Formats: sequence, structure tokens, C-alpha cells
Amino acid sequence: MSGIEALDILAEKFARLPGIGRKSAERLAFAVLEQNPEDVAAFARAMTEAKEKIHRCPICQNLTDAAVCPICLDASRDKSTICVVEDPRAVMAFEKVRTFRGTYHVLHGLISPMSGITPDALTLRELLARLEDDTVKEVIVATGATTEGEATAMYLSRLLRPLGIKVSRLAHGIPFGGALEYADEITLSRALEGRRDFD
Amino acid sequence: MSGIEALDILAEKFARLPGIGRKSAERLAFAVLEQNPEDVAAFARAMTEAKEKIHRCPICQNLTDAAVCPICLDASRDKSTICVVEDPRAVMAFEKVRTFRGTYHVLHGLISPMSGITPDALTLRELLARLEDDTVKEVIVATGATTEGEATAMYLSRLLRPLGIKVSRLAHGIPFGGALEYADEITLSRALEGRRDFD
Repeated sequence: MSGIEALDILAEKFARLPGIGRKSAERLAFAVLEQNPEDVAAFARAMTEAKEKIHRCPICQNLTDAAVCPICLDASRDKSTICVVEDPRAVMAFEKVRTFRGTYHVLHGLISPMSGITPDALTLRELLARLEDDTVKEVIVATGATTEGEATAMYLSRLLRPLGIKVSRLAHGIPFGGALEYADEITLSRALEGRRDFD
Repeated sequence: MSGIEALDILAEKFARLPGIGRKSAERLAFAVLEQNPEDVAAFARAMTEAKEKIHRCPICQNLTDAAVCPICLDASRDKSTICVVEDPRAVMAFEKVRTFRGTYHVLHGLISPMSGITPDALTLRELLARLEDDTVKEVIVATGATTEGEATAMYLSRLLRPLGIKVSRLAHGIPFGGALEYADEITLSRALEGRRDFD
């Protein structure tokens, strides 16, 4: 606490961001004050504009500033394969690899009984809606190799296989506990190639 | 790069903050989008309001939202001793100790030939102005035990001693390379007690 109200309020906002502790939040608030007024105004504007312009694609639930995201709109993408991921950063990671030509579905979370995140908090309704016609033949579950990632993969397998859809998962190769967006491109590419059916 | 312009702009703003790399900046930008619109608007407002309301105290150069900061205004503080610090976070650290009853002078930086920060970038003019009448008897140089901190301390000693003012520095006790605001209260308190004249 600096004793300066406006500064403490700003530090508290930074502290709400994941991975930012109290000391870091104070440091960032001071750093904002070191910037010139135009830069601070631009930062504040960037924040509200990003929130205003960006929403979920009505099909894949990835973040987009368009009515439908560019990947879902792209006629060259294979609509018979859906790669299911935790969050938009995982989509970014796969798109860097460029070997995957199907579409995505963003869950916006993973099942986590410890954190009270149940399946109905994820975008499963929207995923099931995409499976209603016979377009989709395969769902690749591309959640990370964490406890929550594995639990979500198992849940999806049990949910989707009775529908007659092939459900595969990423090959081992992603280090245990590794967050997906930090995997290098070769690791991701091999994990895609080596994907296997739920047995 | 997410390919979503408003998101990339926001991530770029976060990346300008010290200690925030490209990956962290992306992560923080996504975290902002996860907040509800009211919270994002409040964050943006906190940023511009902090910048608008907070300025340097015309005496000690510490940050304040008042015309003159509470420490300079406080009649019970000893105006004959000035503790010179790098930044406002150092003032916060000393104020937590509560044993120091003098006033401060915030340099807003340290001399660093490597980064092109020369003495005239610091608030030395304002410090010299405070020494013009005979109120101030001692200047305690409380910069950190880093190369830049030591260089700044040496420079201040050479600048102020010819004026007939006692110049002291913090006692050893602060670990080498340690940033001042992470020192614990006992370490800071002992460093103050054991301060010694420049020899």
C-alpha cells in the first residue's frame, strides 16, 4: 500500500491478473505512472477496445473480432476434423505449426473438481451442436498433459464415442505438466501426427 | 501474434512494462478479455485516473496526489535530514520501518552510463535547491547495493560534501545486487542505524 489511493487502486487491478503478486502489481502500477500521459491513455483505450471488439466465434468459440472467425470461414479447412483445445492460446500454438488443416473447438477451461469447474462450465453444448449433422468424422482432444487436461480428455471420449465419432488424443511427447502454449513446434507437430484412438 | 488486431495491440502495451516478456504480455491480454466488461472498464479508468491525479511532490519529488506530499507537510518530521532514494518504492520501504523520522528525496533513477542515464536525468537540481538555506545538516544516500546504486552514491558524495553537508550512506547489510524494496524491515532498520560518513 503506497498510501496514494489512485495508485493502490491501480495496483489492485494488476494484482487480479493471473501470476501477478502484490509486489509485482505495485511495480507495474509505478511503471504505468512512469509512462507519458498519451501512452497511458493508449494503454487504457487498448484495454477497453479489446474487450469491446473481441468476442467468441459462434461456431468454434475461439476469440475473434469478426462475425465468424477466419478459420471457420476458410473454405480450405477440413470441416470433418475438430481439434478441441483448452483456450485460444492453444489455437495460436497449433496455427504456428501449420500442419493441421482441420478446425478447432475452444473449451474455455478444463474440468477441475478441485477448482469447482464442472463440464457444464465448458463449451460442450456448442461442441455437440456442431456434431448434429454428419460433417464431423473425428474429434482430436488436444488438452495438455496435466491432471485437468487428462480428466477433460477422458470425459470428452466418453461423451463423444457413443455418437459414432472417432475420438483421438494427442500423442505422448508433450512433457507431463507442460502448458500447451509453451511446447515447441516440432513437439506439437509430432504430437499431432502420433495421435491415437481412445482405447 | 494472435492475428486479432485489438488483442495484439493490448499485448504490446503490456509488453512495454518492465519484466513482462512477449509470452507473459499475451497471457495478460487474454486474462483481461476473461474479465467482465465492467471490470475491464474499471481497470482502464484506474490507469488514466492514477496518471491524472498523481504527480511529483514539488519538494521531495516523491509521488503524491496532494499539492505537497504528506511527509514534507508533516511538522513532526525532521527537516534537517534527507534520505535520498532511487524511487518511490524505496520511500514506501523505509516508511514501513517507521524508525526514520527525517524526509526523503526521490532521484527517479540512478546514474547508469550503460543505459545512458547521466546525472542530469535525476532530480539533483531539486535536491540542491533544498540545500540552499541551512536547514539540512545531513544527507543519507540510500541507493541500493548495485553498481548503479554505488556509482550514484559516490557522485552524490562528491557533489554534496563541498557544500559542508554531512553525507552518509546506508550500512552494509543489504545483500549485493539486492533491489531495495525487497529488503526486509530488520535489514533496512540496521542499514539505517549503521550508516557511516563517506571516507
